[in-house]
Amino acid sequence: MAIRLAERRYIAELLQNAKIGEKYVVAGWVDTIRVHGKLVFIVLRDRTGKMQLVVKKNVSETAWREAKKLSPESVIGARGTLVESKAALGGREIVVEELVVYSRAEPLPIDIKDPSKTTLAKRLDWRFLDLRHPRNQLIFLVEAEMARAAREFFHSNGFVEIYTSKIVGAATEGGAEVFSIVYFDRPAFLAQSPQLYKQMGVIAGFEKVFEVGPAFRAEPHHTTRHLTEYTSVDFEMGFIDSYEDVMKVAENAVLSMIRSALGRYKDRVQEYFSDALMEVPRSIPRITIREAYKLLRSAGVSIEEGEDLSSEAERKLGEIVLKEYGSPLVFVTEYPWKVRPFYTMRKSDEPDWTYSFDLLFRGLEIATGGQREHRYEVLVNQLQEKGLNPKNFEWYLAMFRYGAPPHGGAGIGLERVVMQFLGLGNIREARLLPRDPERLVP
Amino acid sequence: MAIRLAERRYIAELLQNAKIGEKYVVAGWVDTIRVHGKLVFIVLRDRTGKMQLVVKKNVSETAWREAKKLSPESVIGARGTLVESKAALGGREIVVEELVVYSRAEPLPIDIKDPSKTTLAKRLDWRFLDLRHPRNQLIFLVEAEMARAAREFFHSNGFVEIYTSKIVGAATEGGAEVFSIVYFDRPAFLAQSPQLYKQMGVIAGFEKVFEVGPAFRAEPHHTTRHLTEYTSVDFEMGFIDSYEDVMKVAENAVLSMIRSALGRYKDRVQEYFSDALMEVPRSIPRITIREAYKLLRSAGVSIEEGEDLSSEAERKLGEIVLKEYGSPLVFVTEYPWKVRPFYTMRKSDEPDWTYSFDLLFRGLEIATGGQREHRYEVLVNQLQEKGLNPKNFEWYLAMFRYGAPPHGGAGIGLERVVMQFLGLGNIREARLLPRDPERLVP
Repeated sequence: MAIRLAERRYIAELLQNAKIGEKYVVAGWVDTIRVHGKLVFIVLRDRTGKMQLVVKKNVSETAWREAKKLSPESVIGARGTLVESKAALGGREIVVEELVVYSRAEPLPIDIKDPSKTTLAKRLDWRFLDLRHPRNQLIFLVEAEMARAAREFFHSNGFVEIYTSKIVGAATEGGAEVFSIVYFDRPAFLAQSPQLYKQMGVIAGFEKVFEVGPAFRAEPHHTTRHLTEYTSVDFEMGFIDSYEDVMKVAENAVLSMIRSALGRYKDRVQEYFSDALMEVPRSIPRITIREAYKLLRSAGVSIEEGEDLSSEAERKLGEIVLKEYGSPLVFVTEYPWKVRPFYTMRKSDEPDWTYSFDLLFRGLEIATGGQREHRYEVLVNQLQEKGLNPKNFEWYLAMFRYGAPPHGGAGIGLERVVMQFLGLGNIREARLLPRDPERLVP
Repeated sequence: MAIRLAERRYIAELLQNAKIGEKYVVAGWVDTIRVHGKLVFIVLRDRTGKMQLVVKKNVSETAWREAKKLSPESVIGARGTLVESKAALGGREIVVEELVVYSRAEPLPIDIKDPSKTTLAKRLDWRFLDLRHPRNQLIFLVEAEMARAAREFFHSNGFVEIYTSKIVGAATEGGAEVFSIVYFDRPAFLAQSPQLYKQMGVIAGFEKVFEVGPAFRAEPHHTTRHLTEYTSVDFEMGFIDSYEDVMKVAENAVLSMIRSALGRYKDRVQEYFSDALMEVPRSIPRITIREAYKLLRSAGVSIEEGEDLSSEAERKLGEIVLKEYGSPLVFVTEYPWKVRPFYTMRKSDEPDWTYSFDLLFRGLEIATGGQREHRYEVLVNQLQEKGLNPKNFEWYLAMFRYGAPPHGGAGIGLERVVMQFLGLGNIREARLLPRDPERLVP
C-alpha cells in the first residue's frame, strides 16, 4: 500500500532507458497471468506497451498471494527491481516486492485479444473493452494526431479558431436531415454544419476562421460511411481570388494531417493497418466533374451529364485516378449547380456549373467546399431558386448587405479521413461513440 | 479589376516593414471616408489594423469616381504606392491607382464605432457588425488563444484529445437541466458534459484524455454567468494518488491559458480591458470549504455548514482571498457530498465531505473537478443514494467491473475564464453566438 503512483514509470521507458538493478513503480492492466507454483508471471499493459512482472513467493509472500488471485484486465500497481530476462518480452522484467490491486476484473464479456471474433455491433456495445486492444486504440491516436495537425496548420496560417453554436434556430442547409430539439417552449435544431456561422466569422472581420466540432445529420440510412454525429474540420477564408485558393488550403490541411499521422505512428500503423502506408503526394490532381464523367464513361460506368457522383462512381473514379495519375487523392471540381447548396457561387460563364469541389480519398468524399456567393441580390435569387424561404435566413442574408468580402471554405470529415487512411471497412470504427439510427448507447 | 488578392499585404505589415515608394495591394473594410473635392481619404481596416488610402482624381479618375460613392463598411481592394504622410495614422498612406469594390454597405443599423451606445441584446442581434469593433474582436482572439494554450498544455503532457458524442441516450448528470432531442423515433438528450465518456477514455486504456467541445444545459435562469451552450475544456486522468494530482493539472492548464493570452495580446488587452492585466501567480492557494465557511462568517456572511457556496458567497470569498493571499484564483476543496454528483469520491475518513474542488477566478467558479469513485459497489450505492436509477447507467457502471484505475478530472468553462480574465460584465460577450432561454438567433 506504500506505492506512490507519482513515481510510476511508463513501460516503454523501462524497456528502453531505465537502469537494470534499480527499483521502479509500474501500473496498468493485467494483460495475461500464469501461475507456476511459487512464481506468478504477469504481463502488465499500460498505454505505452507491455512487460513482464514476476511475483515470487520468496521475495514477497503477501504480493504472491494477491497475484495468484488476479484476473485478466484487473488494474494493479507494483514496485520492484528491474532485471534482465531472456524469457521476457523486451528482455527485461520486474521482480515484484509490493503489489496493489486497484480494481478486480470479472470474466470479460468479449474476447479483447482478437477483435475479429466479435461483431462490430457487440464491440461497440463494449467499447471501453474493445479499445483495450492496441489496434483499436491506435485508430484514435491517429485521429487525435490528425486533428492536432489540422489545427496547427490553420493556426500557423493565420486562421482563428471559433466555437459556434450547435443549437440553431433554423436548419442550416435546408432539407429534412436535421434533428429537432425542444428548446424550452420552442422548436430548435442541431447544426448540420457551421457553414453559415463560419461565413459570419469571415464577414465579421476575422477574415480567416476554422472550427473543429460536432456536426449532426439525421440520415436515416444505414451505410458504412455515414454517422448521425461526426467531427467536422471546417474552415472559411475571405479575400480570395477564386476557389483555387480554397482548394490549396484544403489540400495542405489534408496532406499535413496524413503526413503528421505517418510521422508519429508509422511503425504502429504498419503493424496493424499495412494497407494504410502511402507516399504522401506533394499535390493533389484537380479534374472537373465533366472530365470525371468522361473518365467514368470510358470505364463503362453509365452516368448522366449534370448528375452528382454516386458513391459507386466515386469509388470507381478513385481507382481510375490512382491508375492514371498515381494519386490516392483527387479534387473533382465545378459540380453542377443543381446538386450544390444555395450559397455556392456559380461559374460566371457557365451558370449551370459552380466554383465548388469535392475531395476524394481512395474513392470516398472526405471534404467538400468552394467559393460562396457574396453578392446579396444573386444570393437571394439562388436561395429562392432552391425553394428555400428567405424569411428563415434573415440574419444570414443581412450579412451580405453591410460589406462581405469574396470568400470560400470547406469542411473535412475527420472520421472519413481516418477511415480512408487506415483502410477501415466501416466509419463506426473511426468514431469513439458512433451514433446511427439504432445506436445511442454507450 | 486587375487586382490580384493573392498579392494582398496586411496593413500592420505595410505600416511596419514595407518599402516606401513600392506598389502594394491592400483590401478590407472602409472604416471611414472623407471626400475633399479632388481627393478622397479612406481609412481602410483589415484584421491587423487601419491605414489611410488617398484617392486622387489626377492619379486615377476611375478610382476617384468609385471612391466618392463608397459607404462605410463597404469591402474594397486597392493597389497603389506606399508613401510617407505626417497627417495619416501610422505616418504612411497609400496613393491609390486602382480600386475594386467587392461589396457595398448600406447604412448600418447599429453604431459600431461605440459599442456602449447599443444594448447588448441588439449588439448580439447584429453580431457580425458588433464584432467589427477591435475590442469585441479581441475577446475572441483571446478565447482562441486560451483554447490553443490549453490544448498545447494537454498534448505536451501526454493527454489524448477525444471527440465524444453530444447526442446521448440518458441524461449525464441526472437532473432536469437537459435538452431533449427527437432521435428518429426515440427520445435522446444533449450531453450536459462529457463526464461519463471521458471516464470511459481513461478506463478504456488511454489513461489521460481531454476534450474541448460544446456542453448543453437547459438552465431556464437568466443570469450574467450562464449560457445554455458553452465550451467545456475537460480532462480526465488515471493512476492518480489523490485529487491533488488533478488540481495540479487544472492549475497548470488555467495558468498557461492566462499566461498565453497575456503573452500574445497584452498590449491590445491593455488598451481595451485595462482591469484585466494581472501578475500570473505561480501557484493557486487551496482552502477547504470548511475554511471558506469560516472566512465568510468572519466577513459577516451568514452561511450554513454543509451548504454549497452561492454566487454571492463565491464573489465575497474571491475578495477575501485576494486580500489575504494576494491571489485572484483559489481552489476551494472538500465540498459536501450532498451538493456533489454521484460519481464524486467521498473522503475516506469523513464521508460527508468529498475529494472534490471548485476553482474560483475573481470570485466566479471557472472549473470544477475531483477524484471519481472507481470502486463498483461504492459507486452503485452512491448512485442510489442520489436517487438515480442504476438501469439508466448500465453501460457506465459496467466499466467499473472490468478494471478501472483510480482517476479524476475537471471541467473548465472556457467562456468563464475569458469573462473573468477580461473583466466582462456578461458571459454573453464571451460567446460568439450566445444561447439563453430567449436567444436562438443568429
